[in-house]
Parts: sequence; structure tokens; C-alpha cells
Amino acid sequence: MGKYHGKATTVVKPKTAEEVSKIVKHCCERRIGIVPQGGNTGMVGGSVPIGNELILNLGSMSKVRSFDPVSGILIADAGCILQSLMDYVAPHNHIMPLDLGGKGSCQIGGNVSTNAGGLRLLRYGSLHGSVLGLEVVLPDGTILDQLTTLRKDNTGYDLKQLFIGAEGTLGVITGVSLLTPPSPQASNNVILALPSFDNVLPLFKTVKQQLSEILSAFEFIDRTAYDLAVKHGQGRGLHDDEIKGAECFVLVETSGGRREHDEQKLNDLLETLLTSDEPLINTGVLSQNPAQFSSLWALREGITEAVSKEGKAYKYDISVPLSTFKDVVDITREHLRSKGLLHEKGVKHVIGFGHVGDGNLHLNVVADAYTLEIQNALEPFIYELVASHKGSVSAEHGIGAMKTHALHYSKSGVSIEWMKKLKQLFDPHGIMNPGKVLEMP
Amino acid sequence: MGKYHGKATTVVKPKTAEEVSKIVKHCCERRIGIVPQGGNTGMVGGSVPIGNELILNLGSMSKVRSFDPVSGILIADAGCILQSLMDYVAPHNHIMPLDLGGKGSCQIGGNVSTNAGGLRLLRYGSLHGSVLGLEVVLPDGTILDQLTTLRKDNTGYDLKQLFIGAEGTLGVITGVSLLTPPSPQASNNVILALPSFDNVLPLFKTVKQQLSEILSAFEFIDRTAYDLAVKHGQGRGLHDDEIKGAECFVLVETSGGRREHDEQKLNDLLETLLTSDEPLINTGVLSQNPAQFSSLWALREGITEAVSKEGKAYKYDISVPLSTFKDVVDITREHLRSKGLLHEKGVKHVIGFGHVGDGNLHLNVVADAYTLEIQNALEPFIYELVASHKGSVSAEHGIGAMKTHALHYSKSGVSIEWMKKLKQLFDPHGIMNPGKVLEMP
Repeated sequence: MGKYHGKATTVVKPKTAEEVSKIVKHCCERRIGIVPQGGNTGMVGGSVPIGNELILNLGSMSKVRSFDPVSGILIADAGCILQSLMDYVAPHNHIMPLDLGGKGSCQIGGNVSTNAGGLRLLRYGSLHGSVLGLEVVLPDGTILDQLTTLRKDNTGYDLKQLFIGAEGTLGVITGVSLLTPPSPQASNNVILALPSFDNVLPLFKTVKQQLSEILSAFEFIDRTAYDLAVKHGQGRGLHDDEIKGAECFVLVETSGGRREHDEQKLNDLLETLLTSDEPLINTGVLSQNPAQFSSLWALREGITEAVSKEGKAYKYDISVPLSTFKDVVDITREHLRSKGLLHEKGVKHVIGFGHVGDGNLHLNVVADAYTLEIQNALEPFIYELVASHKGSVSAEHGIGAMKTHALHYSKSGVSIEWMKKLKQLFDPHGIMNPGKVLEMP
Repeated sequence: MGKYHGKATTVVKPKTAEEVSKIVKHCCERRIGIVPQGGNTGMVGGSVPIGNELILNLGSMSKVRSFDPVSGILIADAGCILQSLMDYVAPHNHIMPLDLGGKGSCQIGGNVSTNAGGLRLLRYGSLHGSVLGLEVVLPDGTILDQLTTLRKDNTGYDLKQLFIGAEGTLGVITGVSLLTPPSPQASNNVILALPSFDNVLPLFKTVKQQLSEILSAFEFIDRTAYDLAVKHGQGRGLHDDEIKGAECFVLVETSGGRREHDEQKLNDLLETLLTSDEPLINTGVLSQNPAQFSSLWALREGITEAVSKEGKAYKYDISVPLSTFKDVVDITREHLRSKGLLHEKGVKHVIGFGHVGDGNLHLNVVADAYTLEIQNALEPFIYELVASHKGSVSAEHGIGAMKTHALHYSKSGVSIEWMKKLKQLFDPHGIMNPGKVLEMP
């Protein structure tokens, strides 16, 4: 988005944890700030220096250390690119437990440091569950080797968890051990048009019950987001006459062990939905082949591109209760209208879409241009709105440099105080990714 | 097992987090040790005082605070009994993400504090993934409220993770928020007899591929364990002539969304296995009704009772690589033989069984009586054996008071040093469950 520009003069690219250790020790003694950097694909400026910190780029640590095709346990250098790990485990009939838009550039160490979520979270859970072990270089240069391959190990405090999502502020992740699930044999999807947002929750309940363990995504798209995606040629939508009066859409994906079983479950679901006395949906289309499957996904994934073609976007990645998704979008739109900002030369659209299954709403405000007036109308308004629902101001993107000032909307004073104590304990000289997650002291 | 006897004079049973906070504050000011106690079902003495600590029993905090049947998110007081939570969510078509032998007494706060594993871990993952939030009273009496219901929240360090598995040494868990999965519609199981242990791993691979997302347990039982269970009337085994020469057994369970689909997958698996040119199994029996289903599980779950009828048991709950399960049992038996301890009046049996899917082996040494000679022959021998495989000396039971001296076999010096630093940070006066996890300073 062109928001962050670093001023670093020096980039180092170590090849081993021992080299990282030496660099960090050197910096620790001289109080030189360090920014650990993976694929540089973050959204909140977490891997960009604030001052003239040294950039410690992990890109040259890109070896798979081991993979066990029976247990599915993979040990990899932090600098391995996500896509290359997907390619590595695929011939062994395994997949990575996470999938992200940035998979072609992002690195597994960065994924873990930012606790990346993505499209597979509903099915395979968060990295706090699938990461089995880490190798971390602490801010004094010590190597903390917890690179275990054990699924079960109840021997004391689970230290590695602290580094998952710490955005490199407590140490540098140099190695990752994680559990990869077996590849599903078949994937299917269906797009559903709903007459009213009120039907989304009952629909989610029905879908969870009927699809059970094969449900792998349940994505919400509001009408405005859908129309924008179609307008900009993203994916193939439903027929115009079929979706008259549809207030929103849901994309359901299944991944399972046998195609014919999965298709039967999906067909039965569609029949239940369409023949019900009080149908929850207007219409639904099941993809019939890989091209249609991709086309339905393109609709959802293309929203981002459609938005960027339409104007400048203020993007909020929030967690709020499922039941409030529509309210949050509507209230934001009305707020902008009341400020006189909702017009062709100001804010053009306010849209919502996201992962219903995870309670994660992407709220995008599309404007003609970035202006301070809009920015001030949106913040802290949206953060306060999120806080009123006990939500999260950053569901998956993290805090980075961008949201340190907004941390208190999602974390209590006691929590922030303890975060500071932990930062002080691990990094007393404040050299590790300074100014990220927590404001500079 | 009658190993631990407390000497506490005082038990308090608070009803709210605020009451817990007041008690802890009082104890903190007067440097009185506290043992947080749940259902008292632990195996390693974690909930029994070492000296005359105050017992803080959570049993009177037993209310469900909220449950959302759409998202499956449950918030409960720490003192809720696991079985009662299972009963609570069942009518809403949800299950608890963990299941344990002690479910009739153990409490959810204790489950989280000990990072309990159990029978559903293979399918639903560890508590580090399914716990969404915690309310914890810290050792100075402060209430840390992180009782969020968000599946995704990337706003800073994930403090709650530190308390999962800390066995009450960093604070008292008073409330738990967790994600409950939808109930499976059908469960099936099958017992397989294998000619050789070498077939277990290829079998696991085949089973994972064919059953994919419906596989919910893959339990290993060695021949001696099987024979003991049958001898003591635990469950119904296979016919004697069918299992001649069988070296070990595997119990496979499936849980899925539709009975006929699951049965077809299981039948196809059995056919693949039995008609193969080089069959991995001698024979296999699929349960045909709920009674048979229970009977097959009784065989696996009855090993514990069979062992206790046979003699006194030294029980080791370890994680080692799947491929070494048999070696670990054999090497232990040979070691005891070489010490002249393997006979009717000494060690009668050395058996192995456990969760292959999790790499968790239960190694039981069944003796005529507990003796110091056997104890000294077993320890540190077994711990060293586990360490040589980079395993865990406590896969699911924890450290408690029993294994503090053995911690170093599974954790590096750096890890233990950092555990001590965290303990010092959270509990500088050492009042919280003293002598557990870490030895008294």
C-alpha cells in the first residue's frame, strides 16, 4: 500500500542459526536495533525499520531440515517460502496447515512470527496448535532450541507459544517444526445467495451440521462487495435474475477424503436448503468442474483487486461476533454519511466480507482518495465500535508499527502491562524490532 | 496410586474470581503457599501440597457462563466438571474437544492447567489450539481477564498460552473460553491384528490416506498388553486361531458426519488391507453395533485395570518417535532381564500401548511388588532412553511433584533457565503451587 518506507543502511542475510546468534550478540553488545524480516508481505509495517535498525533478513535460511511422511511432521528453516513448502510436502500427500494470498513470497518464520491465519484456519486451526516446536535466537544471542517433533510434551511451560504472534519483538525465529495434515482427495464449493443477512447464522448452523468434518470454508460476501467483484470481472457470478433481492452471499467449500461422498453431502445440503418451507437461500450454484471451482473462489478472492480498481481503500481486519457483521458495516456507513463524507468524491463504498467461520470480518472503506478527514472519521470510531463488541482490532494482520496506539481497544491494561514485563524480561535493551507491537518506551 | 499425601490444614472453596483474588492477595502479603486444586485426578501429585500450603479448591466455581450454539464457543467457570460440560453442550450438537478417563471428576480448569491430552487429541488437537481465552488470578491477586470468545485475535503476545500446562505455578485459572466442535453423527471402530510391529507405520500411512478426515483414533496395543486385557476379561478380543502369530494390534476409530459414508470407507479400507498381495494385517474385525463398538474400546481402555489386577505397575507416559515404540519396550525388558529382575517374584511383564497418532507410548512395567531395586533399575534408565530419542518424559501427565528432577531429560538448560525466569517474574515470592514443575529454589 506504499505506507511504509525504511531508512536502514544495512541488510544481513545469515545462513544458519549460529550466524544469526553471532549477529544478535554483536548488536546486543552495541545496542543496535534489529528488524527480523521474512518475505516482507505483512500489512502493518512489522518488517520495516522505524529508524536505522539493521535488517536481519532470513531469506538465505531456506532449507527443509527434515520431513516424516508418516507423521507429517516438517522441520524447516525460517526462511523457507510457504509455496515452496507446499510443493515440498505435496508429493507425500500432505498440505501445509495454512494458506495465504502471499504464499509465493511469505516465509514460514514470518508466518509463525505474525501468527498468520488465512483460508485454512477454519479447518486446521491456528498455528498455536500446529506449530510443534521452534528454534529462536533470543535478544542476547542465546539459541533457544525447542525444535521438537513431539505432538505431546507436557514438561513445563510452553515457551515457544510466546514467539508465535510476537512479530519478532522477543527474538528471531530461525527454525520451525510443524504438523502438516494429509492432503484432502477432493475439494468442492458452492455459492449461495441469501435474501437477508439474518439468514447467515441459521445457514452456518445447518451447513456445519450437514457437512460436518468436510466443511473447510464459509465465507461471507455482502451485496456491495459482490457487485464490485462482478463489475470488475472477478470470477463468474450467479445469473442476474436469480439474485434479485439477495442481500448477501456465502461461499462454502468442502475438502474431504472421497469425491463422491462429498458431492452427495453437498447435493443433499442444497436440496434441503432449496426445498425447505422457509428457505434460507434464494438460490445456490454448485461448481461442476475445476474451472468453475476456481471461478467461484475468484469471486471471493477478487474482491481485493476490485476494491483497488474502484478507489483507495481503508482496510480493517477485525474480529467481531458473527451476529454483528452487518451492523458493523451499516453503522460505519451511516457514520460516514452523517459526517457528509458518503458521495462520489468522498467515500464511495463501505463493504464487508470475510471468514464467518472464524468471526473475522474484513471491513473496507473505498474512497476516491486517501484524506485526513476520512481517516479521522474512521479512527478511533471503528476501534471503539470493535471494542464495544469485545472484538479484536487486528484479527490476523497483527499490530506491527501501524496499530500500537490501538492495542488498548482489544487488550486490557493488565494484559498490556504484562506484555511490557515480558518484553522487558526477554529484551531489556529494546533492540528487537523496536516500536513494533508495543510503542517505544 | 496412593503415592501422595498432603498435610494441609486448610481448604478454601471460593465461588467467584473476585473471591479467589482476595484469597491470593492475602496469601501473597503473608507469603502463604497455595495449591490450586481441581478434581484432584492428576497422576503426578500436582494438586497435592508438599508442605502445609493452603488448598484453593475450585469446585464451587461450577457455572457455565455462556454458550453460543452457532459458533460452539463455551465460557465456563474453572471448576466445571468435564462430564457436566459434555452433557451441557450435547443437546446443542456439540462435544468437548477433549475426553479423559477421569471425566466424571476432573475439572476444566485443571484440564487446561495440565494441558490434558486424552482420546480426542488426534482429531481435535491440543488445548493450545482450542482454548480461546482464560481468566487467571495472578500470584499477586490481580485478575488477568483474557476471557475472549474470538477465534482470531492478533493483538500482541498470547499470554494465556503460558498458563496452559503450567500446572497452577504461574497463577490460578478461574475461567475458560473454548471452542467446542460439532458432534459427529456416527462413530465406528475396527480392531486389526498385525503379524509384525514393522507393519504399524505403513498401516498408519494407509489408514490416514483412506480414512482422512474421519480418522479419530489409532491406538497401538502390543501382544502382551492384549493378552493381559483378554485374560482379565476386558472387552472382547478376536478369535484365538485368527491371531496366532500376531505381534501387535491396532484399534482404529472413525467419527464422521454420515454413517453410511463412514462405513463404506472403513469397509473399503478393510478390503484393501485383506486382499493386498503382501497384507499388512492378519485379520480385522469391524464393530457391527454399539455393543461391539464399546467392547472393542473396552479392550484398549481395560488394559489399565488388567494391569492393576496383575500386580503393581510402574507407569511411564512418554513421547518417542513412532518407529521406536517396540524398541523402547524391548530394550526396557532386556535391561530388566540383564539385572536379573525379570521373573515371577520380580517384574512379570513389560508392556506398551498408546496413541500412535500422537507418538505417545504408555510403557508399563508390571511387578509383583514395588521395590527400590526395580525403581532404581528403571530410573534414570528409561528417562535416558527417552532422551536418546529426543522424546518427552511426560507426554500428557505433566511434571507435578513427581518428575521435577527429570525435567532436564526433555528440556534443555536454556529452556529450564527461561522457565525459572518466567516463574520469578510472575511469582517472585514462590507462593503458587511451590515445588511443582520446577524444584523449590
